[in-house]
Amino acid sequence: MKKDMQDRKPVVRQTLEKVGVTNLKTLVETSWGGRTYKFVPKIQLTIDLPGSRKGVHMSRLVESISEAIEEGSRETHYSLEALGKDILSKLRRKHPFKSGEVIIETDLVVQVKTPVSGRTTAESHEIKVKVRLDKGTFTKTLSVKVLGNTVCPHAMEITGIPHIQRAIGFLEMETRFDNRIDLKDMIDVVENSFSSKVYTLLKSEDEASVVKRMHENPKFVEDVCRDILYGARAFKGCIVKAKVVSEESIHRHDVLAEASAKY
Amino acid sequence: MKKDMQDRKPVVRQTLEKVGVTNLKTLVETSWGGRTYKFVPKIQLTIDLPGSRKGVHMSRLVESISEAIEEGSRETHYSLEALGKDILSKLRRKHPFKSGEVIIETDLVVQVKTPVSGRTTAESHEIKVKVRLDKGTFTKTLSVKVLGNTVCPHAMEITGIPHIQRAIGFLEMETRFDNRIDLKDMIDVVENSFSSKVYTLLKSEDEASVVKRMHENPKFVEDVCRDILYGARAFKGCIVKAKVVSEESIHRHDVLAEASAKY
Amino acid sequence: MKKDMQDRKPVVRQTLEKVGVTNLKTLVETSWGGRTYKFVPKIQLTIDLPGSRKGVHMSRLVESISEAIEEGSRETHYSLEALGKDILSKLRRKHPFKSGEVIIETDLVVQVKTPVSGRTTAESHEIKVKVRLDKGTFTKTLSVKVLGNTVCPHAMEITGIPHIQRAIGFLEMETRFDNRIDLKDMIDVVENSFSSKVYTLLKSEDEASVVKRMHENPKFVEDVCRDILYGARAFKGCIVKAKVVSEESIHRHDVLAEASAKY
Amino acid sequence: MKKDMQDRKPVVRQTLEKVGVTNLKTLVETSWGGRTYKFVPKIQLTIDLPGSRKGVHMSRLVESISEAIEEGSRETHYSLEALGKDILSKLRRKHPFKSGEVIIETDLVVQVKTPVSGRTTAESHEIKVKVRLDKGTFTKTLSVKVLGNTVCPHAMEITGIPHIQRAIGFLEMETRFDNRIDLKDMIDVVENSFSSKVYTLLKSEDEASVVKRMHENPKFVEDVCRDILYGARAFKGCIVKAKVVSEESIHRHDVLAEASAKY
Repeated sequence: MKKDMQDRKPVVRQTLEKVGVTNLKTLVETSWGGRTYKFVPKIQLTIDLPGSRKGVHMSRLVESISEAIEEGSRETHYSLEALGKDILSKLRRKHPFKSGEVIIETDLVVQVKTPVSGRTTAESHEIKVKVRLDKGTFTKTLSVKVLGNTVCPHAMEITGIPHIQRAIGFLEMETRFDNRIDLKDMIDVVENSFSSKVYTLLKSEDEASVVKRMHENPKFVEDVCRDILYGARAFKGCIVKAKVVSEESIHRHDVLAEASAKY
Repeated sequence: MKKDMQDRKPVVRQTLEKVGVTNLKTLVETSWGGRTYKFVPKIQLTIDLPGSRKGVHMSRLVESISEAIEEGSRETHYSLEALGKDILSKLRRKHPFKSGEVIIETDLVVQVKTPVSGRTTAESHEIKVKVRLDKGTFTKTLSVKVLGNTVCPHAMEITGIPHIQRAIGFLEMETRFDNRIDLKDMIDVVENSFSSKVYTLLKSEDEASVVKRMHENPKFVEDVCRDILYGARAFKGCIVKAKVVSEESIHRHDVLAEASAKY
Repeated sequence: MKKDMQDRKPVVRQTLEKVGVTNLKTLVETSWGGRTYKFVPKIQLTIDLPGSRKGVHMSRLVESISEAIEEGSRETHYSLEALGKDILSKLRRKHPFKSGEVIIETDLVVQVKTPVSGRTTAESHEIKVKVRLDKGTFTKTLSVKVLGNTVCPHAMEITGIPHIQRAIGFLEMETRFDNRIDLKDMIDVVENSFSSKVYTLLKSEDEASVVKRMHENPKFVEDVCRDILYGARAFKGCIVKAKVVSEESIHRHDVLAEASAKY
Repeated sequence: MKKDMQDRKPVVRQTLEKVGVTNLKTLVETSWGGRTYKFVPKIQLTIDLPGSRKGVHMSRLVESISEAIEEGSRETHYSLEALGKDILSKLRRKHPFKSGEVIIETDLVVQVKTPVSGRTTAESHEIKVKVRLDKGTFTKTLSVKVLGNTVCPHAMEITGIPHIQRAIGFLEMETRFDNRIDLKDMIDVVENSFSSKVYTLLKSEDEASVVKRMHENPKFVEDVCRDILYGARAFKGCIVKAKVVSEESIHRHDVLAEASAKY
């Protein structure tokens, strides 16, 4: 019987570092403390391909995603990173590879209280969970993207009044798979680094409190970036990256600051 | 006591057709037949503002969204359009307006069977639900965006072989609020209009069947657009719009076709 | 000889309102007062298609764009709207249609002086030029998208300090083809409606001036939207639409205001 | 006299790897062989910031961009990478830094002939030019993003007919600043790696030729990625990265292949 096209020799014997499916959207269930959570994340699943094989059997990648999603939902505690690990574990039994990687991107909604009126408000953050399997060892990279603001200390000093704008903070942690890190704690680190937190719902008294907090806490993007890294020092065994982009209210362009640390 | 800033007279006495919040992402639950569904949609909520008032009380719009989401989840049957209606109904009691509109955009995941191997596969589609309240009357506009493909009949005829590409079909229905229309039926209309349906999971035998179907069914974007409108004729009492964009595999640009009908 | 596939009868005899090419990027030259300007706009060109014809000859649309671009550049005064008219005029000689429409989207860079230091700074704005030909008559719709800011008068009043954020203003004018309207005048109307103008380059003394101007001129999105419409009243014979989106610095969502007028 | 806020000590003494401006759009002129070319690129300019300084003087970064653009246009031969080098050279005299980086992203339009009818057609590609200055040494990274297609050899073999789709090829070269590499040669390498080239303008005879070429040359994304790397082997002294994304016509998701090499 003829070999599948994918299993033949390619003309150019180049190893490919990543081959797979991307921008795949599907329904995922996770569970925590008896409650289930549903997401429609965007998933990317890739493996390496040696120079001796023409192609990857793409349908086995999609099957691994489908089967892991279906079985995973029966567990009591089941996180997005556990799902990522299960996808790679299933794939290992269907398709040979040396290194495999799954990236799951979605929105995480967190309930918080407003600062003065104490109302409950739902806040949505973009998160990314990457799980890698290299020569039998799992690692993970967790990322959060969180909105906040900057209040310019330079304008504040020279004029007594600042310019203020929305800013976006990014925090990424690369660590061993079993290092327990909560995405909500990462979101807290970023939120606490801005001039003030932002909220979906704000009554007049909350708004007054947020605006006051902003003005008492002027920060450059450089300050926010440093404070994110400083806030993240509690997470041990991690390579940490921080980035802040400020959508300047006095300019058409944005300003940014980026840094990394190893804890 | 001083009037709120928003309730004073503006300098320019211009009526504004839409004022409100947009790009608000939050967690929403719907239910159908005893099962609950969760979404993190993007929501826009706007009302008109007469020339005699300076501003809208934005926090009342956000409160109406929060409260409707919280209460809605206790119903047995609860759709996104029912949620939209509830948001406007709550807002009416908090803030005066003549016309109000809520737009909810999210992904809808549908389970289907692959054409030959009969595997279950999850397919995600972008949907948009708009509910309007004008002088006491509710109307709605439902939209779906569905992926498929076109197979060029012109190239097929002149060369015996076609060019093929991914295409995107849009179907929108504007109708009275109580006209029962299922978003899944709208998705079916669009999917059945392409050269073939597309699937997330396809085993070799499924792939062969899909490719064969494509080649037996060559279509221009013009054909797909007409077939969507024709397929939608079963929905009575609707203003229907169809649009198809084909991401040409022989060009850098796309081609498109658009049309509308009243059934 | 066999008819081209496009010229045959379709199965569904539905008229299509728009059929054509979209997302086509190419190089365009315009000229003004002896100087030439170059753009790489995104172009969409569509025509209607009667129910009696299966398809549009797409290559004739692309040829009309190419030929108009090539010939146009020899004129002394040659605007994007003149190019749009030429594309439709060429197409009329190649392909039958009742109504045709071309949309040209690009960035327009304008040189201005900073408010105090008087430095020259280049400011970029997104513009859109639409030209339509319906039963022999040309009309046009000009649009600009301009960045600025809002400074919340409500927070200013209740706390003495405001929240400030980047805002985006849109102005659109639909009018007869020969109504002379300068895109730069439209940009000015929008810029003058914000709490302050924004600049790419700002020295310390300019920054102080801009921040002071902002604080003296607090505005809701509602105010900015009304002021755009009011500023546009000088353009006669136009249907005018204005929209403002404010990227709130105290919220994760945006707020918006929209209105229209006929002058 | 008081130190500028930016020059004081920050609370957290963390070195920042990149601080600067991003998403800045402006007008740029380059010249080649006596002809001038104009672009409206998106520019990012960043420098490192030591732990001993609170902030970067952002306006000096913008000034360096403005001044380099203004002076640069008088040269006979002036490329985007020469502009990048000039921006960093100017900035070095205004602001201290150890490593600086400028990224210029724009569209490059190339005139080519159609394969059979020999018509001239303008083809637009996205390009990115990055110039870095580290401890006195300039390096550069050039990237191109080029559209083409893949024709599935697996479906072709099992059914005699393929599925075909648009694909996007990326090629990136990191090398010393004075290594002469033409962006157009990089575009050629990517274009020649697809199942066939794509064109904006195609007459019937051209279309037939392109479609025939496609079917004679079926390729997986893996094949296209390998062929890009193989085609790039002529560029010496470079770290080369290639990536291909295929927008599958039988799936809702995309497939991808990525690899790198050192020549």
